Amino acid sequence: MLTSIKDECAIVGIGQTEISKLSGRSELQLAVESIKAAIDDAGLKPSDIDGMCGFTLDHVDEIDVARTLGIPELKMFSRMPHGGGAPMSTIQQAAMAVASGTCKAVVGFRAMNGRSGARYSGGVAEGAETTDAISWGWYMPYGLLTPACWVAMHAQRYAHEYGSPAEGFAEVAVTQRNYAVNNPIALFHGKPITFEDYHNSPFIVDPLKLYDCCIETDGGAAFVVTSADRAKDLPHTPAMIKCAAQGAAFDQEVMTSFYRDSLTFFPEYDLVAKQCYAQSGLTPDDIDAAIIYDAFTAIVLMQLETFGFCKRGESSDWVKDGKLRIDGRLPTNTHGGLLSEGYVHGINGLCEGVRLLRGASSNQPKKNIEHVLVTSGMSMPTGAIILGK
Amino acid sequence: MLTSIKDECAIVGIGQTEISKLSGRSELQLAVESIKAAIDDAGLKPSDIDGMCGFTLDHVDEIDVARTLGIPELKMFSRMPHGGGAPMSTIQQAAMAVASGTCKAVVGFRAMNGRSGARYSGGVAEGAETTDAISWGWYMPYGLLTPACWVAMHAQRYAHEYGSPAEGFAEVAVTQRNYAVNNPIALFHGKPITFEDYHNSPFIVDPLKLYDCCIETDGGAAFVVTSADRAKDLPHTPAMIKCAAQGAAFDQEVMTSFYRDSLTFFPEYDLVAKQCYAQSGLTPDDIDAAIIYDAFTAIVLMQLETFGFCKRGESSDWVKDGKLRIDGRLPTNTHGGLLSEGYVHGINGLCEGVRLLRGASSNQPKKNIEHVLVTSGMSMPTGAIILGK
Repeated sequence: MLTSIKDECAIVGIGQTEISKLSGRSELQLAVESIKAAIDDAGLKPSDIDGMCGFTLDHVDEIDVARTLGIPELKMFSRMPHGGGAPMSTIQQAAMAVASGTCKAVVGFRAMNGRSGARYSGGVAEGAETTDAISWGWYMPYGLLTPACWVAMHAQRYAHEYGSPAEGFAEVAVTQRNYAVNNPIALFHGKPITFEDYHNSPFIVDPLKLYDCCIETDGGAAFVVTSADRAKDLPHTPAMIKCAAQGAAFDQEVMTSFYRDSLTFFPEYDLVAKQCYAQSGLTPDDIDAAIIYDAFTAIVLMQLETFGFCKRGESSDWVKDGKLRIDGRLPTNTHGGLLSEGYVHGINGLCEGVRLLRGASSNQPKKNIEHVLVTSGMSMPTGAIILGK
Repeated sequence: MLTSIKDECAIVGIGQTEISKLSGRSELQLAVESIKAAIDDAGLKPSDIDGMCGFTLDHVDEIDVARTLGIPELKMFSRMPHGGGAPMSTIQQAAMAVASGTCKAVVGFRAMNGRSGARYSGGVAEGAETTDAISWGWYMPYGLLTPACWVAMHAQRYAHEYGSPAEGFAEVAVTQRNYAVNNPIALFHGKPITFEDYHNSPFIVDPLKLYDCCIETDGGAAFVVTSADRAKDLPHTPAMIKCAAQGAAFDQEVMTSFYRDSLTFFPEYDLVAKQCYAQSGLTPDDIDAAIIYDAFTAIVLMQLETFGFCKRGESSDWVKDGKLRIDGRLPTNTHGGLLSEGYVHGINGLCEGVRLLRGASSNQPKKNIEHVLVTSGMSMPTGAIILGK
């Protein structure tokens, strides 16, 4: 019996495809290319892999990935639910499998033609095939159909309670776009935006402007987890898994938890944050950089509060002096994030978290990066991890 | 780092709804009723549960189960793919979560209106939303649309290679129907069949007759897993998890792995069996009773071979003298199985496995039951466990 998965495992390989608006190939191929890249990066062979974890939203079955890559056997395979809430859950799965002796090396991945195929901005008028339909049934008929609509509900209430966070939104949006400028695979590579551009951009759903919203892209991203012991013999500095937590909390819905006491506090996130700090023995002060799930700028601010970097209602002020920039207190989403690298459901952000620990980000901060927080999406069942050296 | 999950955890609670052709209520309600029964059976409260595992095929989200039951927080939630291949995978998930310190008590469940709602016998002409469609595309257009069709391919080849297993099929079909006679919740409760009934029943897909096929039913089934240590303080004899394995193997498809070297040997099953015996340190001789996934009689026979109870091609002969009956070498599917208790995707069989260890089956063998093998479905990615005292 272990007390936790702390320090049992490490991420030893990462891989990504290019990010585009039209990949021109299947999601299976994107998956296989990114996983092959991650296995190569780890200095392993496909036959070293014996576990695989994906998303329930995947159109790609792990058995087809295994066939295509030449992975002969899988001893653990699972799918993580709730879309943007899932990416860090795949790390928890991989860590549990390795730490329990079930697997030697586990791959996690996400591959999606999110722009040239089915687009989330198209709304969910069709397609709720589970009890999601119970809660969604109260909102969808009235046009609350897209993630931007749902998150805007929380953002409006936040503005009502704490005053407009517009300046904080702008800081996140511009900072991340400008990180992407230096990231060769980012969709915003070489395309800086100014605060003026931000403020001149149209509302998508008030108070969310165009540049508050992530982009829709095609791409694949993957990682390899193995034991801490084996990681020592592999090419890269291991990204040690200091903790990995999932959380679903009281009166939880997926993106529409609108009938709780507060619309600006997310108990599932609080549960995840508490688990992360308890497992790792770390505090917010120990976190040197972060990859905060940023489907929208608004949820970056609220996550900073839940994870204890600042108090509730103060995140907009907290970020305004550049704390998320490369020389700031907490360089965040240094790849550009979902806002401007691309939307690969957070597995791409995980890759950047590993690069930060390796000193290999295209926006590598000068300071030593000892611990990186990486989170899944907000306003749904979610997860987070802390990586360390 | 653990070397395996052996003896770390136990199943401490089981619960089932009635089984019917028309439940008259939602799958969410069936899930909640069976989970509540399992939690009660374990002597626990909903607030003791902090993990939940289901099937990717579920229409019921764990967060809606949690809300309905009053489970305040979940720290692990996942979905197991591939339908009938999934039930024992939920045990592996629960065991990994508890053994790794992630959760204190994990629920697994399956709830389905499999007769009054969507029926598997309706075929899969629509609905392949993943890369399953790649392999299925070769068969479905030619009418190979249902599980009976797919399994008949293997059964025909088996007959070609080893001679007709019809007498073995009949023995399985009649033995299990007659177990169900004594099981109050079985659909075949009080309805024995004879060998004459079996042989007079029509072919569904040659060589599978009506009574070779499982029934389609509505129902829910659930279990609770906690640590071995905590299990000692709970009301029932713990069903210790001696091993839990998943397996997907070379050139794996879901139900249509027709292009391998053999149609009568299932490498994923072999992988699962080897893991089970290696983890547990047990051999086939140590297994006193079994719950063998029995969507069709044919796959019961082939699993007996893979798990080493007899040699390849010899299972039909092996069972003919009553080895699966209550006083036989290996009492099997003593609840009646999917063939005649009901089809709750194997979680109902798991409940019976636990009852056998508790001495609480409605067909309890007189001999001491020390170890019970419980398996997931055959001809897809699959899993198995061995439970012990």
